[in-house]
Amino acid sequence: MTILDKVKTPADIKKFSRSELTELAADIRGAVLNKVSKIGGHTGPNLGVVELTIALHKVFHSPVDKFVWDVSHQTYPHKILTGRKHGFEDGHFYDITGYTSQEESEHDFFTVGHTSTSVANALGLAKARDLTDGQGNIIAILGDGSLSGGLALEAISNAGAYNQNFILILNDNQMSIAENHGGLYKGLAELRETNGQSPNNMFKAFGLDYKYLAEGNNLDALISLFEEVKDITHPIVLHINTEKGHGYQPAIDMKEAFHWRSPFNLEDGSLKNSRETKNYTRIILDYMEEKVSEGMPLVAVNGGIPMINNLKEFAEKHPENYVDAGIAEQYVTTFGGAVAAGGARAMIFHSSTFMQRAYDQFLHDLAINKEPAVVIVKSASISGSDKTHQGSFAIGMLSNIPDLVYLAPTSEEELLAMLDWSLTQKESPVILQIPEHGVENRPSSLVDFSKAQYEIVRKGTEVAILALGGLFSHGQKVMDALEKLDIKATLINPLFVADLDKETLEKLTADHSVFVTIEDGVVDGGFGQKVAGYLGKFGVKTLNYGAAKEFNDSVAIKELYDRYHLTPELMVADILEALK
Amino acid sequence: MTILDKVKTPADIKKFSRSELTELAADIRGAVLNKVSKIGGHTGPNLGVVELTIALHKVFHSPVDKFVWDVSHQTYPHKILTGRKHGFEDGHFYDITGYTSQEESEHDFFTVGHTSTSVANALGLAKARDLTDGQGNIIAILGDGSLSGGLALEAISNAGAYNQNFILILNDNQMSIAENHGGLYKGLAELRETNGQSPNNMFKAFGLDYKYLAEGNNLDALISLFEEVKDITHPIVLHINTEKGHGYQPAIDMKEAFHWRSPFNLEDGSLKNSRETKNYTRIILDYMEEKVSEGMPLVAVNGGIPMINNLKEFAEKHPENYVDAGIAEQYVTTFGGAVAAGGARAMIFHSSTFMQRAYDQFLHDLAINKEPAVVIVKSASISGSDKTHQGSFAIGMLSNIPDLVYLAPTSEEELLAMLDWSLTQKESPVILQIPEHGVENRPSSLVDFSKAQYEIVRKGTEVAILALGGLFSHGQKVMDALEKLDIKATLINPLFVADLDKETLEKLTADHSVFVTIEDGVVDGGFGQKVAGYLGKFGVKTLNYGAAKEFNDSVAIKELYDRYHLTPELMVADILEALK
Repeated sequence: MTILDKVKTPADIKKFSRSELTELAADIRGAVLNKVSKIGGHTGPNLGVVELTIALHKVFHSPVDKFVWDVSHQTYPHKILTGRKHGFEDGHFYDITGYTSQEESEHDFFTVGHTSTSVANALGLAKARDLTDGQGNIIAILGDGSLSGGLALEAISNAGAYNQNFILILNDNQMSIAENHGGLYKGLAELRETNGQSPNNMFKAFGLDYKYLAEGNNLDALISLFEEVKDITHPIVLHINTEKGHGYQPAIDMKEAFHWRSPFNLEDGSLKNSRETKNYTRIILDYMEEKVSEGMPLVAVNGGIPMINNLKEFAEKHPENYVDAGIAEQYVTTFGGAVAAGGARAMIFHSSTFMQRAYDQFLHDLAINKEPAVVIVKSASISGSDKTHQGSFAIGMLSNIPDLVYLAPTSEEELLAMLDWSLTQKESPVILQIPEHGVENRPSSLVDFSKAQYEIVRKGTEVAILALGGLFSHGQKVMDALEKLDIKATLINPLFVADLDKETLEKLTADHSVFVTIEDGVVDGGFGQKVAGYLGKFGVKTLNYGAAKEFNDSVAIKELYDRYHLTPELMVADILEALK
Repeated sequence: MTILDKVKTPADIKKFSRSELTELAADIRGAVLNKVSKIGGHTGPNLGVVELTIALHKVFHSPVDKFVWDVSHQTYPHKILTGRKHGFEDGHFYDITGYTSQEESEHDFFTVGHTSTSVANALGLAKARDLTDGQGNIIAILGDGSLSGGLALEAISNAGAYNQNFILILNDNQMSIAENHGGLYKGLAELRETNGQSPNNMFKAFGLDYKYLAEGNNLDALISLFEEVKDITHPIVLHINTEKGHGYQPAIDMKEAFHWRSPFNLEDGSLKNSRETKNYTRIILDYMEEKVSEGMPLVAVNGGIPMINNLKEFAEKHPENYVDAGIAEQYVTTFGGAVAAGGARAMIFHSSTFMQRAYDQFLHDLAINKEPAVVIVKSASISGSDKTHQGSFAIGMLSNIPDLVYLAPTSEEELLAMLDWSLTQKESPVILQIPEHGVENRPSSLVDFSKAQYEIVRKGTEVAILALGGLFSHGQKVMDALEKLDIKATLINPLFVADLDKETLEKLTADHSVFVTIEDGVVDGGFGQKVAGYLGKFGVKTLNYGAAKEFNDSVAIKELYDRYHLTPELMVADILEALK
């Protein structure tokens, strides 16, 4: 029986000796490594907080004392200690999510997956505590890059104006998701170098009390520190220096690669599968390389997610043409737009779900100011992700903002044509939604994308299929299936997500009675509803396909496609019904 | 001839003596006061920066040196000095906007009206400069509350990691739009009290050089300071202490009231019109008062805009139940949600245009976490505002996020019924979009708003009119106009913005061939397109009314209504056409 076997609830560890706690740390590390090496997962962040998590549960009494974890991909040890260790055993990996979840445990208070939320959430719990029963310590655990996001900074300033019990732990593992960027991380480095004594202390400047702990993977030191501040009656920051990947050498040596790691061999950390197929990331990188070598004053901007676009390779060759702003999506968007406004060229790299933090910057900064930046949006797709990382909201978010040219290429050739146009025109911000289902090759029908113009791929009658971007091939399949039933449908590649080619649509109403739209995102507020709204006066029928407006937690994509009728068979059945 | 008469371009002031510059300051103040006292406008912010603006244009060479103004409601003096003084003369007030605008002047680089954008925009210009011609100082002018917004803080951290010429002026007038809130303002107060010497210095902590100037309305001091830092080769913050309202006693005495002032009498600052009619603000305040006195643990949360909802009155009586987080819309939303999650009740007050900064917080924090907070949304309406403050995007922004109950009351009774339900249920975040066209009185058809259920106000046939929220009376008028043509239309009060009452809609397709939707916002991504999308398979016609997806700069609402066919006459004509 291992020591971990004895832990059913966090209370069980309270009576453990220090040596038993050390043994527990090793067991937890083993459990984490067992899971992530087999199915992939957040590795370094969790290995780094094993001791911190044990010490928290040793000193405080969850759930009366409340831990609010930022990002929450650093909560595997917390989950192991709070009744969910089975989720780390073979055969049960998918029984739990990779994030905190109120539905799983009374020890979790929020479902989070985006960064920088913990301090605001924890202050909300604190305010509720003050107005109700007044029980318990409130402890926010920030870190692993989440400090630089605007929401975290807004909240820390508000914490500085609060006057009751509040403990803010900064898990400083010297890393954003990629390495840290931004002046505040210089300040943190100074604090680490001076054992917390540097006068350049953002927390004190924001009005907070502050303590530093150098040995953030030392159980004794952590426990002493937490005992010292337990039941404190004012807000305090505990700046704790931890090692990302602690206890597993490959994760220490390759911190960024092990932030989230695909399945790997435990002995040396090498990936189990590492084949690379042709992909849009490569195509974009090669394109940028070419443009910079031709002398284009191009800046590639991202917010702490270079790995999603392999940007490190580009950054190393062209450091002057590269900006990683750390986790700061608002900044990335406004800054990139201003680079373009200033006469250079900007490519802003976003991932659909994190891009959500920049809605106002798209509208107020890029669109109103008509800044000719190019925004590359990845992972904007219906997928089997967890609900905190659902990429399917991109179209509903951006297509209803005026003056953004929002394009959905269906092929390599179209993507390149769009990039060529986007990076030479000076009138509009351009969003490029990258297809997520592999690279297709089809020639581009357009070289100028300033005005919405659909490509009629095949002209038929009765049924018009508008299949957008990444799901264009779905449209082809529906067309083929209808063909077998002697219905010669029209197939359209709309290219434009946000603006309608009304001329083409109106013309088609002459000999088409059913219009089908297909998009790789939530239907509500999307492409298809715009088509339906416009066609409303023509007395034709419209069928919109895409995802329902709902959150899904790791539901298999096949199941989602069935549910949303996103299969040729189900669509054909609906179409036949509509043709009656 | 006044001294101001001699200024055609900023270069003209370079040869002015110090006494002429002082005279110029008085002239500028006079011009500002002439305009704002007659038509209303941002008063205190502009009076406070007269000297600062003169000194900037005296020392630097705009537009080679580039000023990037935050909020940009503090740019009247800048506009006066850059060829736009006619806009402050009687008869020409509306010739210019109240914000910076690239279309108006080569001395403006961005159109802004939201806060906290200047540092990111300026760093973008700086990066573009570095990659192109390398000319000129880049100067961001932050302040008047804009420091606390997450985008500004993200950007300041990135400025700390930048290594070329960059001047960040913090115009510290000791005020947010309302008074300042948050720990960082405590830090600024310490810096003011110590003449910049306090060790608690957020700018230094973020890696920036720093200088303090106490006499921010002293021309000599300002000019010396700017001469000292001109052409500096690294980023520096100039923390300048100014007096909001400087030079006009009523604006100094009543700083918040004079932030934006309706037309007033110059001699004493009193308002020219101050009648109060029955309004939803009053109704909501009375409701909150009642609930708190009944013992509800209610927290009213807002981000630096208490005046929009008269929240000061409530705050004074119930300080424990009130939080003003300063300008920090992301924080306000996440924090308010967590208050509700923690078991207290939260009312979050947003203004539609500024709410845009919290898209991800609505989706990720409120919606995924199903936090039962109530969000009051004001100014979500088609209006004649300038394009940086357009409130008409609220529906497109929020109605496509799952699991938000989004309600549009049409009357006082409905609003109260919705508040009653919202503040007792524990399942969902609730958005209440307050009507913007005066208070109506109609009984509420529902007491439980957990499931979308339309009110059929009058059952007819052929034409079904769904008139949402603030534009419900438009629907009544269309119904009445059709009645005169012997068409007995059905009138529906949808109440629910984001979710359809599909049962009612489907039933109506049996004896209605034309469906009309009317909403007080942009049509794209809104209520009507959802109706059109759902009805697409039924072979009926739909007509969606609301605003087009476009930015409008201070276009009169009557003109907009005509353009969008939002008049009974134009709608009736369209309906008759559709009935053919």
